[in-house]
Amino acid sequence: MTEHEDRQARYDRGMAVFNEVSGGQGQAVIDSLADVSPELAHQTIAWGFGEIYRRPQLVPRDRQLVTIGMLTALGGCEAQLRVHVNTSLNVGLTPAEIVEAMLQAAGYCGFPRALNATAVAKEVFAARGLLPVDTGE
Amino acid sequence: MTEHEDRQARYDRGMAVFNEVSGGQGQAVIDSLADVSPELAHQTIAWGFGEIYRRPQLVPRDRQLVTIGMLTALGGCEAQLRVHVNTSLNVGLTPAEIVEAMLQAAGYCGFPRALNATAVAKEVFAARGLLPVDTGE
Amino acid sequence: MTEHEDRQARYDRGMAVFNEVSGGQGQAVIDSLADVSPELAHQTIAWGFGEIYRRPQLVPRDRQLVTIGMLTALGGCEAQLRVHVNTSLNVGLTPAEIVEAMLQAAGYCGFPRALNATAVAKEVFAARGLLPVDTGE
Amino acid sequence: MTEHEDRQARYDRGMAVFNEVSGGQGQAVIDSLADVSPELAHQTIAWGFGEIYRRPQLVPRDRQLVTIGMLTALGGCEAQLRVHVNTSLNVGLTPAEIVEAMLQAAGYCGFPRALNATAVAKEVFAARGLLPVDTGE
Amino acid sequence: MTEHEDRQARYDRGMAVFNEVSGGQGQAVIDSLADVSPELAHQTIAWGFGEIYRRPQLVPRDRQLVTIGMLTALGGCEAQLRVHVNTSLNVGLTPAEIVEAMLQAAGYCGFPRALNATAVAKEVFAARGLLPVDTGE
Amino acid sequence: MTEHEDRQARYDRGMAVFNEVSGGQGQAVIDSLADVSPELAHQTIAWGFGEIYRRPQLVPRDRQLVTIGMLTALGGCEAQLRVHVNTSLNVGLTPAEIVEAMLQAAGYCGFPRALNATAVAKEVFAARGLLPVDTGE
Repeated sequence: MTEHEDRQARYDRGMAVFNEVSGGQGQAVIDSLADVSPELAHQTIAWGFGEIYRRPQLVPRDRQLVTIGMLTALGGCEAQLRVHVNTSLNVGLTPAEIVEAMLQAAGYCGFPRALNATAVAKEVFAARGLLPVDTGE
Repeated sequence: MTEHEDRQARYDRGMAVFNEVSGGQGQAVIDSLADVSPELAHQTIAWGFGEIYRRPQLVPRDRQLVTIGMLTALGGCEAQLRVHVNTSLNVGLTPAEIVEAMLQAAGYCGFPRALNATAVAKEVFAARGLLPVDTGE
Repeated sequence: MTEHEDRQARYDRGMAVFNEVSGGQGQAVIDSLADVSPELAHQTIAWGFGEIYRRPQLVPRDRQLVTIGMLTALGGCEAQLRVHVNTSLNVGLTPAEIVEAMLQAAGYCGFPRALNATAVAKEVFAARGLLPVDTGE
Repeated sequence: MTEHEDRQARYDRGMAVFNEVSGGQGQAVIDSLADVSPELAHQTIAWGFGEIYRRPQLVPRDRQLVTIGMLTALGGCEAQLRVHVNTSLNVGLTPAEIVEAMLQAAGYCGFPRALNATAVAKEVFAARGLLPVDTGE
Repeated sequence: MTEHEDRQARYDRGMAVFNEVSGGQGQAVIDSLADVSPELAHQTIAWGFGEIYRRPQLVPRDRQLVTIGMLTALGGCEAQLRVHVNTSLNVGLTPAEIVEAMLQAAGYCGFPRALNATAVAKEVFAARGLLPVDTGE
Repeated sequence: MTEHEDRQARYDRGMAVFNEVSGGQGQAVIDSLADVSPELAHQTIAWGFGEIYRRPQLVPRDRQLVTIGMLTALGGCEAQLRVHVNTSLNVGLTPAEIVEAMLQAAGYCGFPRALNATAVAKEVFAARGLLPVDTGE
């Protein structure tokens, strides 16, 4: 396997992982970056998913809990949070667990970040017909 | 008083505080979260205003100076800053004091954050007919 | 139940939750703040653990995954991360899962944050005799 | 020279520097802040460009590399990044160098920040007819 | 007045302002940067205090409330927070008001930032013999 | 080339790049993480330097300008900044250029971040006998 072949292999592996958990959003990432930074698209997929996400040390559901925490804390990552709320639903987190993670965020990064993240979750849930959320209360 | 009654009491107290300083924005917060995370709405009001904001150790005007500093520094909190610029005006800060706090922010969190916050202030001032700001210069 | 009694009840509830998951660190939090900001200590325990953490919508293990993500992303929270790495071990996360969450963080908040968090994890694992971590590789 | 004259001199100097590197965007900054915070506009120009940017210790191209790194890392500075991607092109950075700086950012502040910055770069490049970027790959 | 003379005048003005509010810490700032970045020291004093802080639109006490909010929100600014807690006391904020501002911060930037800032306040209060804080509770 | 061989090849390539620009610090990174997160060490080297840093689209000197900007803006990355100030000197940035980049940072992320970064630079310069910095003033 040459370096070029390996590069392709990791990319293919990452694309398979990303498409599986994101419900087939891989091509959209590639397309949006094709004419400006194809290498960033490549690395998002090949490294982020082909190297890291696929590792068995954390199952996808658990990775999503960590990721929702990080994106909520960072702020200004609404586009990425949208993808990851969708992905979280795809890998088995419930709407109630997702909004609870964002409530937990209020105490660690403050209410504004928690409110902004929850607004993104609401949009995603609405688009998937998951409102109102049954939080068991 | 049962736990449930107390929970309601704190909420009622927080809603009264929030409505007073925000000019009646409490129901909008509740409504926006009702079908996605009612607990986040509850805690924003019951804890943020019923437990913390109402404390006498800082008057509302002073809390708003702190809060404008924090929201400007955090970045990506335009929605919350909009509420708090309005609230700041309601509790006695002048437009000139608000924009001066954001000018002070340039030195502590940089010009981009100061410029973004000032753009929000401008929107709020415009909606309330407070432009141009008389900064005494 | 008077307001004062309820305040105490929430605090007691939070202290029980925090002590259970943190291995009895509650008094240390209270002591460290007793002469400077007892209310901050009270709210950390009574609200953070007596209101939020105890909710059944996310089990402690899942809350810790979210929290590790947030503290890693925030940066500059080494003291809190130390408590939460300990807590994470107490509620069932393995060392391998914790460092994997921090590896995942490299892609979402960058390698410096991931490296700083992992250094804290290493300290905690060392103190508990958990090195070397068996990451299955 | 009186204090007032000096204040004007620094402003004029800053406006000349900013207009040269930004392609004449100075008046837009002044206009956008004229009725809300003229002092913030003044200091952006007089201090940011009349005092700092004009210093010979770093040439404009190098300042732009630093600035793109900072704005990408901060997040939530899309408006400022737009100005600075334009400025970067004006002072000699190529589109390929700009997107490479943002790819480098993926490793230091994470992919979400890198992706958001690259989306801004894409908009600017599109408006200037610079797509597709020739990254030499 | 030549450009050089004016530069000196602003610096002198800033040094007078900074020394007054900080209790004479100006020379320490200058000394610490003298052999590495004298221009950063100059601008901290000449711009930060000679241009901005001295403006009458906010009194020093109010600037300190904003600044405590910002430094708490930024995180990782313990050294600057130490100076500003001292300055806050010098310009009339009480220990109880300072810790209340940091309690308010818990809701806007999360408990970890609030706890870290309060730890700095505690150090400063201890050094000035101001513990325990009388928070009126 | 098998997947394992390729993994090793990227690592070797990254280690060569990192050692060249950092003056041989590669093994220290590996050693510090060996018993806690060897995969994080691997990816820091194999991906960060074997995939990204080695790309010809930006020369090392330019990557360091971007990186200094990012690490200064992030805050709380003193350990990484120490490595990168050293690396910056190794790849041709002068002490005067490095401190000027950090002065530029004052305007974009505020004086506290600029001051903290400059303190790290001062330590590195002192250890290499480069004080006082000749800033040409």
